[in-house]
Amino acid sequence: MLKLKRVAIDTYHENVAFLHRNCELYRAEGFQALSKISISANGTRIHAVLNVVDDEHIVSPNQLGLAEQAFVQLDMDENHLVSVEHAEPSGSMDAVRRKINGERLSLADFHLITDDIIDNRYSRMEMAAFLVACAQSGLDREETLYLTQAMTSSGKQMRWDAPLVADKHCIGGIPGNRTTMIIVPIVAAHGLMIPKTSSRAITSPAGTADTMAVLSEVNLSPQKMHEVVNKTHACLSWGGRAKLAPADDILISVERPLGIDSEGQMLASILSKKLAAGATHLLIDIPVGPTAKVRHMNQALRLRKMFEYLGDRLGIHLEVVITDGSQPIGNGIGPALEARDVMQVLENQINAPADLKQKALRLAGRILEFDPDVRGGQGYAIARDILEDGRALKKMNEIINLQGPVNYNFSPAKLCYEVNAQEDGVVIKIDNFQLAKIASRAGAPMDKNAGIDLKKKLGDEVQKGDLLYRIYAEFPADFKFATTLANENTGYSIGAAYKVTQSYMEI
Amino acid sequence: MLKLKRVAIDTYHENVAFLHRNCELYRAEGFQALSKISISANGTRIHAVLNVVDDEHIVSPNQLGLAEQAFVQLDMDENHLVSVEHAEPSGSMDAVRRKINGERLSLADFHLITDDIIDNRYSRMEMAAFLVACAQSGLDREETLYLTQAMTSSGKQMRWDAPLVADKHCIGGIPGNRTTMIIVPIVAAHGLMIPKTSSRAITSPAGTADTMAVLSEVNLSPQKMHEVVNKTHACLSWGGRAKLAPADDILISVERPLGIDSEGQMLASILSKKLAAGATHLLIDIPVGPTAKVRHMNQALRLRKMFEYLGDRLGIHLEVVITDGSQPIGNGIGPALEARDVMQVLENQINAPADLKQKALRLAGRILEFDPDVRGGQGYAIARDILEDGRALKKMNEIINLQGPVNYNFSPAKLCYEVNAQEDGVVIKIDNFQLAKIASRAGAPMDKNAGIDLKKKLGDEVQKGDLLYRIYAEFPADFKFATTLANENTGYSIGAAYKVTQSYMEI
Repeated sequence: MLKLKRVAIDTYHENVAFLHRNCELYRAEGFQALSKISISANGTRIHAVLNVVDDEHIVSPNQLGLAEQAFVQLDMDENHLVSVEHAEPSGSMDAVRRKINGERLSLADFHLITDDIIDNRYSRMEMAAFLVACAQSGLDREETLYLTQAMTSSGKQMRWDAPLVADKHCIGGIPGNRTTMIIVPIVAAHGLMIPKTSSRAITSPAGTADTMAVLSEVNLSPQKMHEVVNKTHACLSWGGRAKLAPADDILISVERPLGIDSEGQMLASILSKKLAAGATHLLIDIPVGPTAKVRHMNQALRLRKMFEYLGDRLGIHLEVVITDGSQPIGNGIGPALEARDVMQVLENQINAPADLKQKALRLAGRILEFDPDVRGGQGYAIARDILEDGRALKKMNEIINLQGPVNYNFSPAKLCYEVNAQEDGVVIKIDNFQLAKIASRAGAPMDKNAGIDLKKKLGDEVQKGDLLYRIYAEFPADFKFATTLANENTGYSIGAAYKVTQSYMEI
Repeated sequence: MLKLKRVAIDTYHENVAFLHRNCELYRAEGFQALSKISISANGTRIHAVLNVVDDEHIVSPNQLGLAEQAFVQLDMDENHLVSVEHAEPSGSMDAVRRKINGERLSLADFHLITDDIIDNRYSRMEMAAFLVACAQSGLDREETLYLTQAMTSSGKQMRWDAPLVADKHCIGGIPGNRTTMIIVPIVAAHGLMIPKTSSRAITSPAGTADTMAVLSEVNLSPQKMHEVVNKTHACLSWGGRAKLAPADDILISVERPLGIDSEGQMLASILSKKLAAGATHLLIDIPVGPTAKVRHMNQALRLRKMFEYLGDRLGIHLEVVITDGSQPIGNGIGPALEARDVMQVLENQINAPADLKQKALRLAGRILEFDPDVRGGQGYAIARDILEDGRALKKMNEIINLQGPVNYNFSPAKLCYEVNAQEDGVVIKIDNFQLAKIASRAGAPMDKNAGIDLKKKLGDEVQKGDLLYRIYAEFPADFKFATTLANENTGYSIGAAYKVTQSYMEI
């Protein structure tokens, strides 16, 4: 047996083990080509990818090293005796190979796959194989349903003591767009239950959980979440702690860097999280625009049909709104700047971003109409009343205080760079991707004060030298990365007024 | 700038970099989700996947660590100053995504992809994405041609001063089957040039290079190879040193552990290696059998057409033979045991395995018929004469002596386990995969004396308790892995004589 050693390397959703090349018991190189080993101690068994080590400071010949993730999963103390075997290929890889060969998978297949994924039996390259197989030939409607069900049951599921549990989701890709933090207090102030769990950003400059974390604690225990929801009808917490559909989180960590996008995967990802969170009524926001995730109206309409089909099969009341995704919503991009926009709207400040307010009211209005007592078409007016008479702000402050307020004064990061118009004209195009990328490079969301503050939006007239936006960063290296990128491409196009990107009508 | 540090971890065909979580210059976690960084020093730039480290013994906050492969690629001394940037996604990943979406790729696309692969710009998960995309919708004939051409030009190409340069390749999957080491001396003794480069085993228990290494040096410099070939018309060397089609080697290191098999990929892999090795005339051996790589005759015939098409387009004279792949060829599985079989055949020993000798003569005969002076149908008889009158053995000894003989006495590994028949009957089935797996677990090819020695073949009568085969291992852990596997499934089926696996006729 070898002695267990913790190797303080963070391998990000992949179990990695380390054997010295001159390991006393096993032929390290013999294991390597096969790439996967099985490690046992006291009846616990984990799987890991093997790296061979030539430095006794990392592992010595009588030790087995485990990187952080694997060490936590095995859950033994250092120096515990462990044994190593060849890992049999996970049975579910057979299903993946069948999918590669063009077969349709069953619900049982998807359960095997998600079980193996949450057991960390898949290497990152095996996850890539599964994702590409699903992206390429596509998942049909039934397969998407099965994957949703398998991912839902891969983790915990929350139950709420209410007949109607509302939730909302935006398929993303639009910087700013922090409507959730306005919608949730409006809906809760009306009396509907909306226990909102949100994600942190993976590759975007801010998620709702990152932005809410500027104002309050978001890492709530399940008990704490229930307490906040019982008292306020709502919460705004980070979903990661709740372990909802964890197979999805692991797959996303591979999908994002690969930059592959599979419709079935996206649908299953969204719906499994919402089902696990206990939602009964769900509003989906699909922004459409030339630099949004969904670029064409026909694609949005097809997606809507798929959502509706899956919602019916899964027994969730689901509605889809298609919105204007031609530019960022609000002015700030990055956690603190977005939190500022949200609070300006909730506080009914005169300089609050009008687009953010309007979009939040429309979506909140649609959710209020889930209430059987709200007459069709009256939701918007009710939402506006709740926002404008201060009840939404009051509700938000209750939520913040119960979750645990964070003492914070808005002040943008210390390094600032101004991006100006290079010519006279009208802002005719704003590239969502490029602005998100610049804000990410500037340090968002890790540095909550980093990001972008927009000063011009589509249709605004500008003169050469006018300020388009400011970039804020805390760290010199990040500042350089972001400004270099903005100098290559500001993300803004200036031109003749008739060329302004057409907005899509909201439906 | 950070100071470069070599981290003695072997990450097997993937560049990995290490930053301390509290790195003085960069926010390590900010890079992590994006997963790929670009590292520059003195105008050299490499790409690597990032792991975040929490142990100053591995890297300290002012250092950038590189695992072995990446350190060798950057080729700077330790403590050299390096800077880090976000890696732009490799342009060729666009082509991979287009392939995922079902598009056909061009020659230029394949060149971009193979260039990025040999520059180590692809992570293992990106390579998996490419391989699955190629496996799923398949590569059409033209795409296979393009991939072959792109892989051929990814490395060095050998040139020989002869009008006819013969080569052979078996698509593999049959344990034993070491015909090459018999064919090459026969063909060279006849006077044809056959400069053979072979691979080492990746997941199989022995490759030709592993087996030849029992008898002589195989890691030949290009100069040494030319010297041996000029003197003997032949060589039997390891192809890795020659850097032929290196993109293929890297892809195979991902493809094998994933267990995906793509016809286009396999064709391109074989032909690019042969083209790069300078072959003008090529014989391809496709064994067919229920546990061979190719299981059905119609699949073999389709593969033959594809080989013929590609051979014509690539300007190489190519012939395909379809052979019996229903069981291992020869008795030994593992480098030393296979080398023993080969020498028994070359030395015309009475106990030499007849199936190995017959198959080698048939294939050698077909290659001899590439010679315009050999009458069609006469090759086999010429090959047999060369073997039986000792000219082949003499040629083999010349090659061994020029390459650098290894002093070696055949003696199987010290741990031995006997696998016996569990019932009376006839050997009706032998599972190639299971025997290869048992021999690998026993330590082959790393321990040259490890492996399996078969005592019964298809159609042999056995009584309960008769010896089927012996397993040999050097190391106790390997011995246990192999015997455990053999006890689960010996790989042999005993039954009634009429159930013996049907052999396929050789064509």
